[in-house]
Amino acid sequence: MVIGTVVGSIWATRKEEGLTGLKLLEVHIDGFERDAGATDSILVAVDRIGAGTGDKVIVTRGTPASAFNEQSVPIDALIIGIVDPKELKG
Amino acid sequence: MVIGTVVGSIWATRKEEGLTGLKLLEVHIDGFERDAGATDSILVAVDRIGAGTGDKVIVTRGTPASAFNEQSVPIDALIIGIVDPKELKG
Amino acid sequence: MVIGTVVGSIWATRKEEGLTGLKLLEVHIDGFERDAGATDSILVAVDRIGAGTGDKVIVTRGTPASAFNEQSVPIDALIIGIVDPKELKG
Amino acid sequence: MVIGTVVGSIWATRKEEGLTGLKLLEVHIDGFERDAGATDSILVAVDRIGAGTGDKVIVTRGTPASAFNEQSVPIDALIIGIVDPKELKG
Amino acid sequence: MVIGTVVGSIWATRKEEGLTGLKLLEVHIDGFERDAGATDSILVAVDRIGAGTGDKVIVTRGTPASAFNEQSVPIDALIIGIVDPKELKG
Repeated sequence: MVIGTVVGSIWATRKEEGLTGLKLLEVHIDGFERDAGATDSILVAVDRIGAGTGDKVIVTRGTPASAFNEQSVPIDALIIGIVDPKELKG
Repeated sequence: MVIGTVVGSIWATRKEEGLTGLKLLEVHIDGFERDAGATDSILVAVDRIGAGTGDKVIVTRGTPASAFNEQSVPIDALIIGIVDPKELKG
Repeated sequence: MVIGTVVGSIWATRKEEGLTGLKLLEVHIDGFERDAGATDSILVAVDRIGAGTGDKVIVTRGTPASAFNEQSVPIDALIIGIVDPKELKG
Repeated sequence: MVIGTVVGSIWATRKEEGLTGLKLLEVHIDGFERDAGATDSILVAVDRIGAGTGDKVIVTRGTPASAFNEQSVPIDALIIGIVDPKELKG
Repeated sequence: MVIGTVVGSIWATRKEEGLTGLKLLEVHIDGFERDAGATDSILVAVDRIGAGTGDKVIVTRGTPASAFNEQSVPIDALIIGIVDPKELKG
């Protein structure tokens, strides 16, 4: 998984079937050096646990991210946890 | 998922079986710093929702991108939504 | 999928079972900025559609790339199309 | 797999169902040049073999990382080994 | 697949079940520009074809890499071939 910070919501009126009702958040992924920048550092992830802007979150990517719905919905990123503030190291 | 901008269509007369009829779009993926550049920042994605050049789109990658056809077609990127302009943050 | 240019063939006499007879091509993947360089910009992909050196090709990666053989062969990159020259944008 | 160093634990009180009881560690992934930095160089991985801060570990990513639970839990990184100190090259 | 050079063996006494008996090699992955460096340029891959230090090898990543054992072992990188020296281009 990767760690990132929620920066806002993403809304898409026109979308693939099956996505209706899913909450999408934009997450900026942490790296060793934020200044270095690189493709993929911005992710859009499904949230089902109530994350909001400013939260530090753990994001699972790829096929395991869609395990909750048996892969019938084409998503590849899921927020699986909100990091407890004091315990975050790095 | 990642966010990017559609820059045009890709046409391939010679292709794998099963790809006939699929619309392929070239998408430039957003990063923290566009200037940084990196491999993978250009993706070719299947579009089934009517995206066009200039649209800001959400792209699912990997196995979940081919879930719509039960993986019988070898594709790894699917446009799953067109971002509503005013709601995009970042 | 990603776009790249075929730069040559790869031959491997010693290999995993199941790979015999598969044509392997080396492909340099396009990025926003070629000068930036990054790991993964060189891929070895299976070709079944007659691609050759200099061709601009579309490459599918990951599990969907091995869909044609029901995953019995351990490959993770497949050339799925040769881009028609005039239509390539970007 | 990739190699990295465990830098601490990650705690998340609010999380997806199924994650309860899993130990999550933050791992900094090794690259050729540590100074170069890049997104994804920080991973959160599940540990089931007793790794701790400072340990050099081998991390499996993606679907194979969730094989131990038949993909019912949405995780994409698993520590599969602690590298024996003297044998590490590179 | 990616191409890289074997730089040595990796030994892990403490490891996930199912890994016993698997030979792990550290591989430095080729990029366009070696100087650029990037995370993921070092991989640990399973070898079943007798590769050794200095060999140029082809590595399959992700789920297809674990196809040989029906995904019961959590590995995500497999050496599938040793490149014939004279034929390598690039």
